[in-house]
Amino acid sequence: MQAQLVSTHGSDNFRIGVAGYNFRQQDLDKSLAFLHDLGVKYMSVKDFQLPMNATPADVAALKAKMAGYDIDGYCLGPIYMRSKEEVDKTFEYAKQYDFKLLIGVPNYDLIPYVEQKVKEYDIPLAIHTHGPDSAPFPDAEEVMKYVGKLDKRMGICMDLGHTVRYGKNCIDHIRKYSDRIFDIHIKDVTEPSKAGKTCPMGRGVMDIPAIVKALKAVGYKGVLTLEYEPNPENPFPAISESIGYLRGVCDALK
Amino acid sequence: MQAQLVSTHGSDNFRIGVAGYNFRQQDLDKSLAFLHDLGVKYMSVKDFQLPMNATPADVAALKAKMAGYDIDGYCLGPIYMRSKEEVDKTFEYAKQYDFKLLIGVPNYDLIPYVEQKVKEYDIPLAIHTHGPDSAPFPDAEEVMKYVGKLDKRMGICMDLGHTVRYGKNCIDHIRKYSDRIFDIHIKDVTEPSKAGKTCPMGRGVMDIPAIVKALKAVGYKGVLTLEYEPNPENPFPAISESIGYLRGVCDALK
Repeated sequence: MQAQLVSTHGSDNFRIGVAGYNFRQQDLDKSLAFLHDLGVKYMSVKDFQLPMNATPADVAALKAKMAGYDIDGYCLGPIYMRSKEEVDKTFEYAKQYDFKLLIGVPNYDLIPYVEQKVKEYDIPLAIHTHGPDSAPFPDAEEVMKYVGKLDKRMGICMDLGHTVRYGKNCIDHIRKYSDRIFDIHIKDVTEPSKAGKTCPMGRGVMDIPAIVKALKAVGYKGVLTLEYEPNPENPFPAISESIGYLRGVCDALK
Repeated sequence: MQAQLVSTHGSDNFRIGVAGYNFRQQDLDKSLAFLHDLGVKYMSVKDFQLPMNATPADVAALKAKMAGYDIDGYCLGPIYMRSKEEVDKTFEYAKQYDFKLLIGVPNYDLIPYVEQKVKEYDIPLAIHTHGPDSAPFPDAEEVMKYVGKLDKRMGICMDLGHTVRYGKNCIDHIRKYSDRIFDIHIKDVTEPSKAGKTCPMGRGVMDIPAIVKALKAVGYKGVLTLEYEPNPENPFPAISESIGYLRGVCDALK
C-alpha cells in the first residue's frame, strides 16, 4: 500500500458526536438522515426528541428510528432539575431508555438528593457547565466544589466554549479534572468573554488542536460532542463544516 | 492571553479555495454566497461562469460580483484546448480577465504552440492531471515528460485524487515536481483505483495530513483548491465538511 493511502477516520481516536439540542427546530428524521450522511454515529438525546412523559412504546420507537440511521443516542440531556420531583422523573426517564450517562443541571441544593439517585440507579451524572450565562455551575471548578468528594459517578460535562466565555482556560480544566469529565461539549467561540458566540469550528478564538492534544494526553474516553447553538432554523452547514474540522484535527494529531 | 486562545485559521498556512467546476449546476450568486458564508476566498473560474466569448463588460460584471462576495477568482480553468484556434482563444480570454494562472489541458501536439503563447502572454499554464479517465496527461510524470525542458512557466495542476486513482503516490510526486506545481486540486477518494470516487475529505483512503505535511515541506505557495465532483445538484454539504476538514488538518499541523 502506498504511503498516502491510509484510512484516516477521526473516529479512530475519538468518538465524535453531535448534541441533539442543535436540532431543536428540526424534524427528527431530517436530523438523523443528516447525521447519517455526515457519518456521525453519536447524538445526545434531548427531551424535545423524547418527551419526559414518554411511554415504553415511545422509547422503543425512538430507539428503532435512531438505529435505522445507525445513530447511537449515547446519553440524555442536558436536563434541568429544579425540584426533587424533577430529579425523580429524570432518573426514571433515563432508566426507561437505558441511558448509560445523564447530563443534568440540578439546582445546587438538590446535589445530595441527586447523589442518592446516582447510587440507586447506577447512572452517572455529568453536570453541564454553562459559563457566564446565569445557569447553575458556570465551570468545572464549581462542579468539583460540589461533587469532588461525592460518589465518583458524579462528574462533569465540560462545555469548552462556555468555559472560555467564562474567562477560564479549558485546557487547564481538562488536565485538572480529567478523572471526572464524562462528556465534552466541543465548539468554537468568537470571543473569550460573555459576548462570545458559537461559530463554525476553526473560525473562532479557540485553539482546537491544543484542546484535542490535551484530551489525548489525559486519555479522555468519552465522546466529543459538537454543540452548535446558532441558526436553529438551519444548523446543517455549520455542523458539516465543524464536524469536518474536528475530524481533520483528530486525524492530523493521530 | 490564555493558552487555548490562539486564532487558528487554516489560511495562515495555506490559502484554501474551491473549484468553480463544483458549481456547474448551481446559480453563481448562490455559489458565491455559499463560499462567502464558508469563509472561502478563492475560486477557480470555469468557462460556464464566464463564457469564452465574454465581452469586457461581462468580465467587469463577473469581477464586480465576485468582489461583492469577497471571492478572488484566482485562476481560470481547467480549459481543454484541442486546436490552435482554441489555444488562441483561451489565452486571449485569460488576458482579458487578467488571470495570473491558467489551468489547461492542451492536446499533446499543441504543447510547442502553447509554450509560445505562455511566453507571448506571460501567463503561466498549469496542466491538469486527470488520472485513469482517458483525458490527456494522467499524472505529473507525464506532464513533466512534455514540459520539463520547456519554459518554467509551463507546469502542473496536480489533481491529488486522480493521481491516487491512477495508482501513483501523490506524495512522491509532490516532492519530485514541487518547483513546477502551480496549483493543487485536493480531494479524497474511496479507492486507489479507477473505480475510486471523490468523497467528503477525511472519509476516503487518502492520508490528507501526510499530503499537507509534504506540501509544507516543499514550501508550496499556491492555493489548495477543493475539487468535489459528485452531487452537482447539491454539492454544498460535502464542500462545507471538506473545507472544515482541510482547515482542521492545516491548523493541527501549524
